[in-house]
This record gives sequence, C-alpha cells and structure tokens, in this order.
Amino acid sequence: MIELVGFDADDTLWRSQDYFDDAQAQFEAVISRYVDLADAHLHDCMLATERRNISLFGYGVKGMVLSMIETAVAITNERISGGDIHRLVALGKAILQQPVELLPGIRDAVQAVATQHPLVLITKGDLFHQEAKVCASGLSALFHRIEIVSEKDPSTYARVLAECGVAAAAFVMVGNSLRSDIAPVLALGGYGVHVPYHRTWALEAEADLGEDVSRMRTVTEPVHIAAAIRGFSG
Amino acid sequence: MIELVGFDADDTLWRSQDYFDDAQAQFEAVISRYVDLADAHLHDCMLATERRNISLFGYGVKGMVLSMIETAVAITNERISGGDIHRLVALGKAILQQPVELLPGIRDAVQAVATQHPLVLITKGDLFHQEAKVCASGLSALFHRIEIVSEKDPSTYARVLAECGVAAAAFVMVGNSLRSDIAPVLALGGYGVHVPYHRTWALEAEADLGEDVSRMRTVTEPVHIAAAIRGFSG
Repeated sequence: MIELVGFDADDTLWRSQDYFDDAQAQFEAVISRYVDLADAHLHDCMLATERRNISLFGYGVKGMVLSMIETAVAITNERISGGDIHRLVALGKAILQQPVELLPGIRDAVQAVATQHPLVLITKGDLFHQEAKVCASGLSALFHRIEIVSEKDPSTYARVLAECGVAAAAFVMVGNSLRSDIAPVLALGGYGVHVPYHRTWALEAEADLGEDVSRMRTVTEPVHIAAAIRGFSG
Repeated sequence: MIELVGFDADDTLWRSQDYFDDAQAQFEAVISRYVDLADAHLHDCMLATERRNISLFGYGVKGMVLSMIETAVAITNERISGGDIHRLVALGKAILQQPVELLPGIRDAVQAVATQHPLVLITKGDLFHQEAKVCASGLSALFHRIEIVSEKDPSTYARVLAECGVAAAAFVMVGNSLRSDIAPVLALGGYGVHVPYHRTWALEAEADLGEDVSRMRTVTEPVHIAAAIRGFSG
C-alpha cells in the first residue's frame, strides 16, 4: 500500500537547528556590547526581520546572516562596527563549514526503511549548502531521488509525487517539522511520521494539522520509524 | 538527430549581469567615501573575495552581498559605517526585486525552437531567486523541465541528460556563457549555440573549449538560434 517514503534532512537526518541557535547566541553576545538586551527585544526584532525577508531571501544561512546584519544595524542605530559586522558574516561561514553530524540511530533507521520502500529525500533551503550536506552525509546512495525545494507546501509535494508517479495515499513523509513535513502531506491525503527534534525554529513551529491526524504517528526515536510506516500498511 | 534543446536563463533569456554591474558601481561609490579607489584595487579585492567564497556560498545575489560586505570591511580597515553596510544589503535586495526583463527577440526564438524540440531550462544559482524569475518570465510553460543546479559542469549535464533519457550527441545547449553553457556540453559530445551577451562576469569568462568547436555555432541574435540548431541536424 505504501509505495514511497520521503525523508526530511535538517534535524531529521542530521543536526542543523543547534548550529543556528548557537549562532543566535553569539549574535546576542555581539549586540549586547551596544545595547541592553533586556530592553532591546533582539529575538523579536530578528524574527520580524526574517519574516519580512523570507519572501526575498528564502531559507538558509546566507539569508539568515543578511537578516542578522539588518537587525544589528537597526538595533544599534547604525553604531555597530565593521569588525563586528565581519563577525556576523563569520558566524554564517562557520555554519556552512560544519561537518555533517548524523543524528543518533538515523543511519540504521533509514537503511531499515530502504529495504522495504524506495526513498526520496525532500529538503528545503539553500541548494548549494543542502547539496554539500547530502554529499557529505554518506546517505545519498540510499535515496532513489533527492529533491531540494524552495518551499515545502502541498503544491511542492504534489509535484514531486507526480514526477515519481506515486499517489499521495501511497506516500509517507518522515520529518521533524509539523509545518513543513507533516501538515502538507496529510492535507494531500498522505501519511506522516513525526520525529520531533529538541529545538525548532520559531517560523517552523506554526502548523495546522486539520483533522487528518489519524494518518500521522509520532515517534521519539529513529529506531521506531520503520514500524510506524508498517503500521500504515496494515 | 537532435532530441532535446537546453536553454540557459540569466543573460540568455533575461537580463541579469547588468544588475550585478550596476550594484558593483554603487558599491564603488560607497567605498570611494572611505578610500581612494585609484589605490585600492577594489575590483580585484572583490573578485578575490568572491573566488574564495564561491565554494562556501555558491552563486547568486546573497553570496555576492556577503562578499561585498567582507570586502568593504577589509578595504576600509573596518571603518565602514553601519548605515553604509545597510546600503550594501539594500543593493542585493534591489536585484532580488528587479522585474524579469526578457531579452529582445527571445520569446519568439524560444517558441520557434519549441515547435521542433522539447526544451529544458538549465540554470545555476540561488534556487529561490531562480524559481521566482522562471515563474515571472511567463516562459515556463514552454519548457518540458526546469533544472536549477548548483554548478554547470559536465557531471551536472550528464545527470540531467540521463534523467531525460537523451544522449549527449542528441542534445544542444543554448546560452551566453562559454564556460557554463557551451564547454561542458561539447566535452560530453553534445552541441552548443553560443549567444554572447554584452557583459560577462569575470568568473564566467574563463573557458577551455578544447577541440570540439565544430559542434558549436555562435549567433549574435536570438532570431538565429533555431536555424543554428537545424544546422546540427543536417
């Protein structure tokens, strides 16, 4: 009954949000030398800048750094130094240079599912960075197809499924984001296995699952993914 | 004999490099308030920064802005103001917000080729920005397939051709860049129609065409593309 299984990448296969959170903490340390963080609402300002820029920049590290720089200039009333601006660029470069760290148990979990179904990797964000991570992960040979997309909405999933010749009702998506991995697939009539990650970007935490939650399972460890998928076929 | 025709996008279908050159001119105007441009070798510094960052940032506007900011901080000895840094971010945003301007005659030229062969759009750069431009161009319905790739080298063309089930010897690529559009396709045994654009980014101007130039034609106007492709079949 299930003919194709999709996997998300960032924070499903490998660590990602932690690096962004660390960069955010270092961003705060830089800004704290200019303004009193207790008054500045830095986190809210940064989120507002990212929300405003997302339709222009899309997802990924480079857009994050540009939004940080905009936020820093505004919140310091243009007082931020050139050296500190360069530190913000370096924060982004450090994320881009991070080695890929697979999450515990995920390699075995993906291999177990791969013995049962063809797999497709569906990840959003910066094409260049995502390709580099897929390549470095050592997992790419397990995937029949790799789709790097600009937005994970129902129309994107519908296009990928059409290209694969698979109906939504025969598709399971595995991922950590209710908004990007689970809700759009449920909306199309497909299935979802939610593997929550301990940290989620605020813009990813917003999801409306509707009344389709009977076609979703939540597992706390990758080792349970294959059984959850088998449950949909039974 | 020819089964598939590929088109490049930036500076083949629509104007692109002009906007980057304009941004570069405005970048120079900003920097000239800090240093004597006659001594500073700004253009060489910027190109060196871009060359150093390309393996981390890939192609596109966001990477260009980050390289501009790095160059600006270095060349002004960190004296550049927050307001001017913000001006550099705004230069990038202005490019991202440019409406898509098709090059003269290209719509008719693409339509003429489309009556003879299936078409694939093969463009490199930022996924998000390229998707937005393809969508805004009004040309996407003429293309059987749209491939946004991180690098246009022989292995990328080989992958696209394999997915399309077409041999390189039955493929023509049309584009303005000898390095990205023509040389890698000739190297695979395919054909190229070079449509030079009046301006080319320095990193795109480096190409080694080898001894395959008999499988290449150069045309000066889009109206001649279809005839050049017919010439390969005769």
